[in-house]
Amino acid sequence: MAILERNDSGGVAHLRMNAPERLNALSDEMLAALQEQFTMLKDDNTIRAVILSGAGKAFCAGHDLKQMTTARQSEDGGKAYFTDLFQRCSALMLSIQSLPQPVIAQVHGIATAAGCQLVATCDMAVAAEGTRFGVNGVNIGLFCSTPMVALSRNIPRKQAFEMLTTGQFINAPRAQQLGLVNHVVPPEDLASDTAALAAVVAEKLGSVVRIGKEAFYQQLQFPVEQAYTFAGEVMVENMLYRDTEEGIAAFIEKREPDWQQ
Amino acid sequence: MAILERNDSGGVAHLRMNAPERLNALSDEMLAALQEQFTMLKDDNTIRAVILSGAGKAFCAGHDLKQMTTARQSEDGGKAYFTDLFQRCSALMLSIQSLPQPVIAQVHGIATAAGCQLVATCDMAVAAEGTRFGVNGVNIGLFCSTPMVALSRNIPRKQAFEMLTTGQFINAPRAQQLGLVNHVVPPEDLASDTAALAAVVAEKLGSVVRIGKEAFYQQLQFPVEQAYTFAGEVMVENMLYRDTEEGIAAFIEKREPDWQQ
Amino acid sequence: MAILERNDSGGVAHLRMNAPERLNALSDEMLAALQEQFTMLKDDNTIRAVILSGAGKAFCAGHDLKQMTTARQSEDGGKAYFTDLFQRCSALMLSIQSLPQPVIAQVHGIATAAGCQLVATCDMAVAAEGTRFGVNGVNIGLFCSTPMVALSRNIPRKQAFEMLTTGQFINAPRAQQLGLVNHVVPPEDLASDTAALAAVVAEKLGSVVRIGKEAFYQQLQFPVEQAYTFAGEVMVENMLYRDTEEGIAAFIEKREPDWQQ
Repeated sequence: MAILERNDSGGVAHLRMNAPERLNALSDEMLAALQEQFTMLKDDNTIRAVILSGAGKAFCAGHDLKQMTTARQSEDGGKAYFTDLFQRCSALMLSIQSLPQPVIAQVHGIATAAGCQLVATCDMAVAAEGTRFGVNGVNIGLFCSTPMVALSRNIPRKQAFEMLTTGQFINAPRAQQLGLVNHVVPPEDLASDTAALAAVVAEKLGSVVRIGKEAFYQQLQFPVEQAYTFAGEVMVENMLYRDTEEGIAAFIEKREPDWQQ
Repeated sequence: MAILERNDSGGVAHLRMNAPERLNALSDEMLAALQEQFTMLKDDNTIRAVILSGAGKAFCAGHDLKQMTTARQSEDGGKAYFTDLFQRCSALMLSIQSLPQPVIAQVHGIATAAGCQLVATCDMAVAAEGTRFGVNGVNIGLFCSTPMVALSRNIPRKQAFEMLTTGQFINAPRAQQLGLVNHVVPPEDLASDTAALAAVVAEKLGSVVRIGKEAFYQQLQFPVEQAYTFAGEVMVENMLYRDTEEGIAAFIEKREPDWQQ
Repeated sequence: MAILERNDSGGVAHLRMNAPERLNALSDEMLAALQEQFTMLKDDNTIRAVILSGAGKAFCAGHDLKQMTTARQSEDGGKAYFTDLFQRCSALMLSIQSLPQPVIAQVHGIATAAGCQLVATCDMAVAAEGTRFGVNGVNIGLFCSTPMVALSRNIPRKQAFEMLTTGQFINAPRAQQLGLVNHVVPPEDLASDTAALAAVVAEKLGSVVRIGKEAFYQQLQFPVEQAYTFAGEVMVENMLYRDTEEGIAAFIEKREPDWQQ
């Protein structure tokens, strides 16, 4: 059985982490499998949205601590391995953000440490009632420094700081209040509600969502004037798409657009 | 009837977009009229706050799609026009932010696309119950890239991303929760409550609110140490105003200040 | 009686501003006393968390306006004094943020102007029900420009703008909604609940919380790719701590860690 399952349907790729006995820990194998998929998806124009979920009791419990501990036996105490590991993990997170298609986390059980980072990194997230979120590495002496990069770009500062330094969990309604997830739904509706959200995105023009998502994260890092210059250029490019011309014409003429996408 | 009405009262300029049959679309004419007013207001020391509202059923429904479609007939397919249009629109948004006086959006009905951008751009916003907000250009194939510059600086990241890629609306209470508007009030109180908020601002020292507003947006774009250096200089300048000396003296002596403003 | 009291217990230093007759105003003396303590605490490895509270009816009412007014009598109208004052105050705020140990504001009564800035500057804050928060200098003609540096990095933009330009107060539940405080508790539980939060932090590995807090504020100011590069290096360093190795081993072996800290 593959460590990462993929099912495509209606323009949506559903990636399911499948190492339930390790709570879908981000082992070397899981990181590699995820990276492989996101690298392939990047150039796949037939896919217009991605769902990321986890098999078993939890979405993802973070790094694989046993694997990391084994690495300590090398001559450098694991330093080269750890350096490489965190680079691979950060590269994966950046791949999700730079993926042209929106990625939706479908979250249940627990999302801790790098698992919480995955939720924060995805463009959107839907959580089952009962899900708990934590960046709790501090409890065992490993501050969640890389997860905090994503978390602190999702929720207010003091609340991120508290999660990081106390190691305490927050529940799903609190995660929604803070901005970490978009929706909280009953567990039995989690799969269908996430699929419905993905379907809404997938029915848009793929090319348009692509330039939009890319522009979203780019402009966030610019001062406002530069952001407007950049976003204005994106708008002009977008206006000149054939399908956009058709979409606007159809709207004015109150009919369905005839899109070629 | 002017496309933009202006009424001044008690140090407050009330600008009312008046093209109700187009849902106050930001046509060339509306953009020009707004820009003209904000350019004049910039140097008008008698005005200490500005209200922006819309006549008819909606606050503003964004760009004028019919006008934009007409521009496609030029030799370049509209490219030069679109480039100029988004530059003019962005310049207007930056004029609102750089206007010395606070600008309050008085919002009702719908605020969509560049209309939602206007709400996000204003320094504060009061919305009538029942108002709906959306950056729904994606539905017709035109991602709201310039509106997202303002929106993503007002509300959390995942919630902005969802609005932009699903095109779905949020209601007024949700807009308030997310930070897009300051207050939600019954429709019958919208005008009076917005006027009351403007009056509170207008009774402050105009010179002080001016340096405060300018400093607000400037320091937001600085690293924190640089922000403190800058803000400290603003404080010193402020302390040396004659009216500030009087304001502080009056406070200490428990009397009303005798301001010259 | 000292203007600033300090009590250490269980790895937590409790600093209590003690000028209740001036509502713990940040006079020259108070600023100096606070700076002295934070400078000492920086190198004190026995302290793993700090609580900052105020004696009397209020947490802190901001700058000492009488002292500032006296300074106007110098030949330059106070300019040199004000310049120095705001530099000292900003340096104090930056000292709190750069202090290796987390600092928790224990807030009651009122926190206004630079007092509200203190709350925003602390890493976390617990407030008693009934506490009111304001950056109300605008009411007396002195815009809270330096407080806004901290405030606008804690709460959404429009809500910060409203507080700054209207001078109006917000209550404790609203401060919590906006992200300015972490918890709101009954007044009779304020001291014990704040102490409990500090104790949770203090029982973590001090060295780990130190690198985590420092990394938190640093990475916030980086673009996301640079943030990941930086945070990844912090993670590697953290992994190589002897106590972290023990913490992870203990977790895997389901036993209590034997930490040397």
